[in-house]
Amino acid sequence: MTYSVIGMGAIGGYYGGRLAHAGLDVHFLSHSDYAYVVERGLQVDSCEGSFHLPHIHAYHSSEDMPQSDVVVVGLKSVNNHLLPELLAPIIKEDTVVVLIQNGIGLEADLQAQFPQLHIVAGLAFICSSKAQPGHVVHECYGSINLGNYSCPQERFAEILADFRKAGIQAAEVPYAEARWKKAVWNMPFNGMTVALNTSTDRLLKNPATRQLIYDQMMEVVGAANALGIHALTKEFADKMMQMTDEMVPYSPSMKLDFDFHRPMEVYYLYTRPIMEARKVGFDMPKLAMLEAELKFIDTLRSGAVLQP
Amino acid sequence: MTYSVIGMGAIGGYYGGRLAHAGLDVHFLSHSDYAYVVERGLQVDSCEGSFHLPHIHAYHSSEDMPQSDVVVVGLKSVNNHLLPELLAPIIKEDTVVVLIQNGIGLEADLQAQFPQLHIVAGLAFICSSKAQPGHVVHECYGSINLGNYSCPQERFAEILADFRKAGIQAAEVPYAEARWKKAVWNMPFNGMTVALNTSTDRLLKNPATRQLIYDQMMEVVGAANALGIHALTKEFADKMMQMTDEMVPYSPSMKLDFDFHRPMEVYYLYTRPIMEARKVGFDMPKLAMLEAELKFIDTLRSGAVLQP
Repeated sequence: MTYSVIGMGAIGGYYGGRLAHAGLDVHFLSHSDYAYVVERGLQVDSCEGSFHLPHIHAYHSSEDMPQSDVVVVGLKSVNNHLLPELLAPIIKEDTVVVLIQNGIGLEADLQAQFPQLHIVAGLAFICSSKAQPGHVVHECYGSINLGNYSCPQERFAEILADFRKAGIQAAEVPYAEARWKKAVWNMPFNGMTVALNTSTDRLLKNPATRQLIYDQMMEVVGAANALGIHALTKEFADKMMQMTDEMVPYSPSMKLDFDFHRPMEVYYLYTRPIMEARKVGFDMPKLAMLEAELKFIDTLRSGAVLQP
Repeated sequence: MTYSVIGMGAIGGYYGGRLAHAGLDVHFLSHSDYAYVVERGLQVDSCEGSFHLPHIHAYHSSEDMPQSDVVVVGLKSVNNHLLPELLAPIIKEDTVVVLIQNGIGLEADLQAQFPQLHIVAGLAFICSSKAQPGHVVHECYGSINLGNYSCPQERFAEILADFRKAGIQAAEVPYAEARWKKAVWNMPFNGMTVALNTSTDRLLKNPATRQLIYDQMMEVVGAANALGIHALTKEFADKMMQMTDEMVPYSPSMKLDFDFHRPMEVYYLYTRPIMEARKVGFDMPKLAMLEAELKFIDTLRSGAVLQP
């Protein structure tokens, strides 16, 4: 199968790099890194073995790329409005798009734009970053869970096998359950570390914010339950609290976006799940408040003119 | 009647100064300003007429003060744990204590400590500050509403008359209703200007935080209603929104405390009203989240050691 990777950042650069390193036919769409990687290739420094790909198939526009069997999307979801234009030239009748992104509602929105498309959700558990153009640093973890949204099962199994062949720890998970389970951690910690400009450990050490984080986790559990996803339980939230207690102090991706003055993924991480829950009559007041605070912070940071 | 004023800040200095300027017998307890005011007296620069009191009755300890008919408390409520010790030497059988402070539950706590005490709530609508020792600047407004908590009505009327004699615009209001009505504005704006480090106008110009402020106001209205106080309505919240739209950009007292690195009145402005509402089964989730954020901010600022 041929692969295209959209976005050569911490996600696309790492997983796409692994697939190419394993000898698969991988084509990279790169905006800011294009000139660099054409000349010098892609360097991946990884806790699981570093490697350098001196010659990669890199493109500056998806119109120059071949149609692919699989498209791996490693963009930040704030750029998803670009997907229709980026995908149109490279998808064919049976192309599978793997969205390695955070949030709720990503697959539904893409499916509405391409009703025939086969879509897979990718949930990455990884600490990686782009240190400089053409240079990805993978510090720890690295596994990926794939959830089948609208893909024929045999194609799905082939992709899973390719990821594993490339040395990536990959597992199949139930789609909706996996997305909401990830939200149990993502929704409290991504936003609260930004709102209070702090780290996961400090939020958990203060009794007031510890309780708040737990209340927010339980709002996600309640929303998932209201949507008919019953695998999310109080015990799962307890497990997430304990896991975070045992982690080193951590800056979630939204905190990194905030610190580096990049736009924050407020829509798919907050607005959309809150909206989905509200549709079935479930309210998430504390996460809705966090959403409002993040929108306020994001507007001020983006220098947008406040409407009177 | 003899008056004692505890606290010579923006509140005690202003209202106490007005009472003394009108010729009433006023005794001031002053901690940090004592040496200065003994030597140079009290200066009040006021939009309604400035005045200087060259000789005031100032004391460094309430044990040196005479017993008074009325004690006006102008302390920040973060210092209310000091009240029993400060009040004990200066109260007699029929002393009335006027608490000019923000929040909910202040009178109940003091009454529990002094069951026979006559207590009046003072709700100040004033922009004033202490510019330097012995120097209060009163910029605008200045009226005070007095709510009778546990005072014989004739004594209450005498105090109201004294305030008016001193040129203070004073009115009688129903106690519980007045406290909760003030909370409709205080609870959203005091905390949110701190949590987002901003001003009232910016919170209202951003559609997300505008809705959040309104939701928080309606939580206060709902809490008051649950406590049997039915004078608080949606229309009152609408009026507070409109009033704030028409105000100049404003930093509430908690924002000033935050900016000047003073402790914030989280307990009586948030913890206590949330607790009172919860006792009758009413939940204030967005204000409870704000309370948690303020506790986190206050703990970090006070340099307190985080408990593991």
